[in-house]
Amino acid sequence: MAPALSLAPGDALGILGSGQLGRMLAMAAAQLGLRSVVYAPESGPACDVAARTIIAPYEDDAALAELAACVRVVTYEFENVPAHTAEFLAARLPVRPGPAALATTQDRAVEKRFLNGQGIPTAPFLEVDDAAGLAKALSALGRPAILKTRRFGYDGKGQIMIREGMDVAQSWAALGGVPCILEGLVPFTREVSVVGARGLDGSFAAYDVCENAHENHILALTTVPASMAPDTAAQAVAMAARIAGALDYVGVISVEMFHVVDGAGERLVVNEIAPRVHNSGHWTLDGAVTSQFDQHVRAVCGWPLGSTRRHGRVEMRNLIGHDADGWAALLAEPGACLHLYGKHEARAGRKMGHVTRIFPE
Amino acid sequence: MAPALSLAPGDALGILGSGQLGRMLAMAAAQLGLRSVVYAPESGPACDVAARTIIAPYEDDAALAELAACVRVVTYEFENVPAHTAEFLAARLPVRPGPAALATTQDRAVEKRFLNGQGIPTAPFLEVDDAAGLAKALSALGRPAILKTRRFGYDGKGQIMIREGMDVAQSWAALGGVPCILEGLVPFTREVSVVGARGLDGSFAAYDVCENAHENHILALTTVPASMAPDTAAQAVAMAARIAGALDYVGVISVEMFHVVDGAGERLVVNEIAPRVHNSGHWTLDGAVTSQFDQHVRAVCGWPLGSTRRHGRVEMRNLIGHDADGWAALLAEPGACLHLYGKHEARAGRKMGHVTRIFPE
Repeated sequence: MAPALSLAPGDALGILGSGQLGRMLAMAAAQLGLRSVVYAPESGPACDVAARTIIAPYEDDAALAELAACVRVVTYEFENVPAHTAEFLAARLPVRPGPAALATTQDRAVEKRFLNGQGIPTAPFLEVDDAAGLAKALSALGRPAILKTRRFGYDGKGQIMIREGMDVAQSWAALGGVPCILEGLVPFTREVSVVGARGLDGSFAAYDVCENAHENHILALTTVPASMAPDTAAQAVAMAARIAGALDYVGVISVEMFHVVDGAGERLVVNEIAPRVHNSGHWTLDGAVTSQFDQHVRAVCGWPLGSTRRHGRVEMRNLIGHDADGWAALLAEPGACLHLYGKHEARAGRKMGHVTRIFPE
Repeated sequence: MAPALSLAPGDALGILGSGQLGRMLAMAAAQLGLRSVVYAPESGPACDVAARTIIAPYEDDAALAELAACVRVVTYEFENVPAHTAEFLAARLPVRPGPAALATTQDRAVEKRFLNGQGIPTAPFLEVDDAAGLAKALSALGRPAILKTRRFGYDGKGQIMIREGMDVAQSWAALGGVPCILEGLVPFTREVSVVGARGLDGSFAAYDVCENAHENHILALTTVPASMAPDTAAQAVAMAARIAGALDYVGVISVEMFHVVDGAGERLVVNEIAPRVHNSGHWTLDGAVTSQFDQHVRAVCGWPLGSTRRHGRVEMRNLIGHDADGWAALLAEPGACLHLYGKHEARAGRKMGHVTRIFPE
């Protein structure tokens, strides 16, 4: 399989994962004349807009071979694609972003070492493999500090803040005794993200920096552009481009950063990398010439990147759990663009949809 | 079935027709959290993005009953839905726009009489049922004049221009001897359209007037806003609102008009009504806060209409037949938004996709 394979309209794209990101990717693929085949262990929002769905475990080689046989490139909506799945598929057809991006971003310790190796600042951190190691790391980094599992964390899951007076052994046990890192706190002013894309030809295009507010560790509100000096915003984009280049990345990449403003001025500290389209980029569906989903499809198909120009100042609010019950009022609000993901049950903490508002700049 | 039924997210919407309009409607429905069931005699572009597809003739009552049982409202992508189909479904659940809109717009003579009855100007016309009638009508309206079949015409099909010297009997035979109208020519400066929507509550919202250029009787280019005096544009929108109101219409309605500019000033003459989303409204996918497809879904679901605000000056170019072979260059053009409909074969005259360009105003 030639590494520089480009798709043509009419070809099929494989998407691992059946959630809302897969759903919006499948619609973007359809807009560009492609067929989508969604592969996931269970049915989900993406299945309703896919040309075909394969429901099978990620470890099912026969089903993976079926996917490989009916699409020309495979991408994914989540970073925890099992290594075997990625390798099995990559031996048969292009998987974009490539398995290297997955291997780097699936493990917080590997990711932070990679970033520091690129000269990109992160929170101070130490690897922790047992309670004794945690005690030692706490002595080195001080309290409060955040203990995070190296793998499978998202939306605040797999992490615990260790404050003064908390028991070390209990804290260690709380995350299940799996390999962790302990992170020192970054005294940030705001959380931001760069959503950018790297093409097969090495080109890089980012949207303006997004400013993100979280509630209960889940993204609640993104506003664009972020409040920061133009130089700092340019630095943020340059960091994302450097990361993407170092990973020989193809597709949309999202880099979450802390924006620190103190007596010494402004600086950026990278929090984490998501090798995929990102919730903080959902505003691009309504607020930019090319959505992040279109952009990802363009990139993984080997096509040129589209314009990232905004239509105005943008605000994107997530609809979490029963927030989505307010759909009728949102539909009635002049200028609000409502997106619902077709999930049947509004469980607490579940991302049910989002609403975008665009204001003249 | 209550006539004022409103849907809720998670409900299913039935779409008659599997073409590109159905495809874009299905994606808009998905964006709003609905499931789409596409019903058509043959598979087409819409099937790849529908939650479910029913392939059956429009006369198949068992299949229609199956559709009625699994959706809460039915809409359509084309005006030639057979009367029986519309009536069968309307007896079981809301069909929007309603059968009255179909009955009026399926027959050019009925449509023009309806318009004139509303005080809305059309081209002068006479009904013609045989060659003798055609001769008489030609004497009354003069040459050149356009003979059009009363039913089933689109994109220039089912019509013929009768010029000086052309034989009357041959002209009559050329359209198959079916009931026709003869239309006098309107000396128009430009062709325009109003794409608007009427909600279940009677509210009406239109996009800015679109200016349309045709090639070989097929829409080639739409630019928005149309070049016309603001008063004339307001009149155009008012005419569309009057038409929609008189039809007790629910959904997106498109009214094609001739803009006549002469010594007497500016005036508008209605050419035809399409009871559906319209090619001249495709620019709204990229160039407006709410797309015409979202707007249609909102209306037929009984939801409030969305904002029709533009993001700039807009140009939409159709990709007809082998135009779509230029997809790679269009993807590489900065700021161009490419849409391809997933049709396999680029036949001459076939609408394969479109490209939108947005410019600062």
